[in-house]
Amino acid sequence: MPTNEVPGALMDAEILEQPAVWRRLLEAGQFDDVAEAIRRHAPRMVLLAARGTSDHAALYGKYLVEVTHQLPAGLVSPSTMTAYGAKPDLRDVLMFAISQSGGSPDLISSLQVARAQGALTVAVTNNPDSELAGVAELHVDVRAGREVAVAATKSYTAQLLALYLLLDRVRGGNGSAATPLPDLGDEVLAKEAEIASLAQRYRFASRLVSTARGYSYPTAREAALKLMETSYLSAQAFSGADLMHGPLAMLDAQVPVLAAVADGPGGHAMRTVLTRLAESPVDVFTVGTAAAVAESTSGVVLPGQLPEELAPMLEILPFQQLAMHLAVARGENPDTPRGLHKVTETL
Amino acid sequence: MPTNEVPGALMDAEILEQPAVWRRLLEAGQFDDVAEAIRRHAPRMVLLAARGTSDHAALYGKYLVEVTHQLPAGLVSPSTMTAYGAKPDLRDVLMFAISQSGGSPDLISSLQVARAQGALTVAVTNNPDSELAGVAELHVDVRAGREVAVAATKSYTAQLLALYLLLDRVRGGNGSAATPLPDLGDEVLAKEAEIASLAQRYRFASRLVSTARGYSYPTAREAALKLMETSYLSAQAFSGADLMHGPLAMLDAQVPVLAAVADGPGGHAMRTVLTRLAESPVDVFTVGTAAAVAESTSGVVLPGQLPEELAPMLEILPFQQLAMHLAVARGENPDTPRGLHKVTETL
Repeated sequence: MPTNEVPGALMDAEILEQPAVWRRLLEAGQFDDVAEAIRRHAPRMVLLAARGTSDHAALYGKYLVEVTHQLPAGLVSPSTMTAYGAKPDLRDVLMFAISQSGGSPDLISSLQVARAQGALTVAVTNNPDSELAGVAELHVDVRAGREVAVAATKSYTAQLLALYLLLDRVRGGNGSAATPLPDLGDEVLAKEAEIASLAQRYRFASRLVSTARGYSYPTAREAALKLMETSYLSAQAFSGADLMHGPLAMLDAQVPVLAAVADGPGGHAMRTVLTRLAESPVDVFTVGTAAAVAESTSGVVLPGQLPEELAPMLEILPFQQLAMHLAVARGENPDTPRGLHKVTETL
Repeated sequence: MPTNEVPGALMDAEILEQPAVWRRLLEAGQFDDVAEAIRRHAPRMVLLAARGTSDHAALYGKYLVEVTHQLPAGLVSPSTMTAYGAKPDLRDVLMFAISQSGGSPDLISSLQVARAQGALTVAVTNNPDSELAGVAELHVDVRAGREVAVAATKSYTAQLLALYLLLDRVRGGNGSAATPLPDLGDEVLAKEAEIASLAQRYRFASRLVSTARGYSYPTAREAALKLMETSYLSAQAFSGADLMHGPLAMLDAQVPVLAAVADGPGGHAMRTVLTRLAESPVDVFTVGTAAAVAESTSGVVLPGQLPEELAPMLEILPFQQLAMHLAVARGENPDTPRGLHKVTETL
């Protein structure tokens, strides 16, 4: 295992490990029982509860449920079931709680309440022995292996892929569309030197904005969080639609924009945003389609002809590398961010 | 009407108008029919769709539905029904679309899809003649009067109060708990000189973080948006719980925190956050209980013994005034933010 001596070595190693994690997950085929239980429960709606990075995986799951399963879905505000003691009727509800460690007390409480209120509860964790896995009726192991770096990377894409594979299985699919992902991931990660060089450009930025729509919106949120966690700059994520509703006013040549633009309806809906930005002096770094990168200041073109719902696993990779290299360029050690612990206890 | 000659005069006038708007809304008693239709529909879940400031009213509505109606609720990602063409089964769903102007094309499309899919649709707007009001089965007029300033203020609290009164009516209440609000609002707004002086403190800040939990979380989100829209600084909102999960790393003496801490379970859940911040060199400006303000660097103590769900109408007022005065102190005119239009068209 890499040691903590080279700043960012731990985070870098875990970023590079992701295609191997995905191969493991694709081969594991653990989802039949969980998928069958979900089909039997026949949910009328889906709730997802998570915090931090896992909340972005939950948001991805929400898009998957709404678009591919045609079911209404919502992100849970855990405080309503914990601080406020709400006891909603959840009889035909499927509830996911997503957590790398499986140790967040407020998620455990929320899931317990949801289960008592009739929901079918599924914990998605990186630790089958965790308390969250224990209180849930069903468990999905994301099999990312032990995550040491404080900034979560491999557990995030493992959560995305596990949710994709499980929800695809519920619909009777076999996840085959995801088969090319690990090789494509290796291809994207091979551009690290290019990213390291691009990171220098943002050495003195104090604020960044990230943006995307649809399936890629969780990517924008997660990219912003990684930058905040490791580089201590202020990074804000906006849906491309929300960006046009106010925050656009704060953009100027001093606030670069990171955009994720996949090949599909969500990426298509970003075109007006990119055009508007291209007419301004704003610096735009885009990960996604060749056309979108061409309209930006710089960027990384993603390979392959994947369905848009699989793009989030690939498109976060350059942003993870950007966060890591930017932190190092700014003299920080992204492996040991100040003020953060690996397991956050929220009561 | 105030003219645009004194920077912030329009925004200031609309901020001060809020108690009068609330009095009008409290007297209007328009909600019986809508409440009765909702009771007849007997929704099993509630969806809310909105953008920008109205999205924070939607978030407030989500807490109200979850806590006081014990129903699962979710914020809609409009793109799933527009860009992705999802056609979910919404037969026992109540769907709100909230918009000041009632003119956002993506909300209109989402509501049309939801209505066709069986949802009971309610538009909450400041314009009964708007297209959104027309496509919805039911309409709630927030009666804020014409809003001229680009940064929404009076329409926001009118949306909150309208949602509160409607949902209270659905439960058989008569909204009487809200009766003291207008007088308390006048009391809070009378502290404007104090806020104007406090605003000087943040004259040179480039980043701010806002935080709250529960019912006050929408306040933190809306405070951040107002500051971004008018002062062009980077203002990010985090649930107190999420703040502990990563973003805490970016806080230092250069990044002030704005906190909303009401008297109730949500405010109570903020205590560990405030204690953690008090141990740090971070500057904290709090609006809320005397105890929370005492633990902060500065703040505004809210009057009265209101139920926590009514605090959001009052606690946003000092943040609106802070945004307005800070913008003026920075040499900006908050009445005419650059790059923003009053109606944002998102397709």
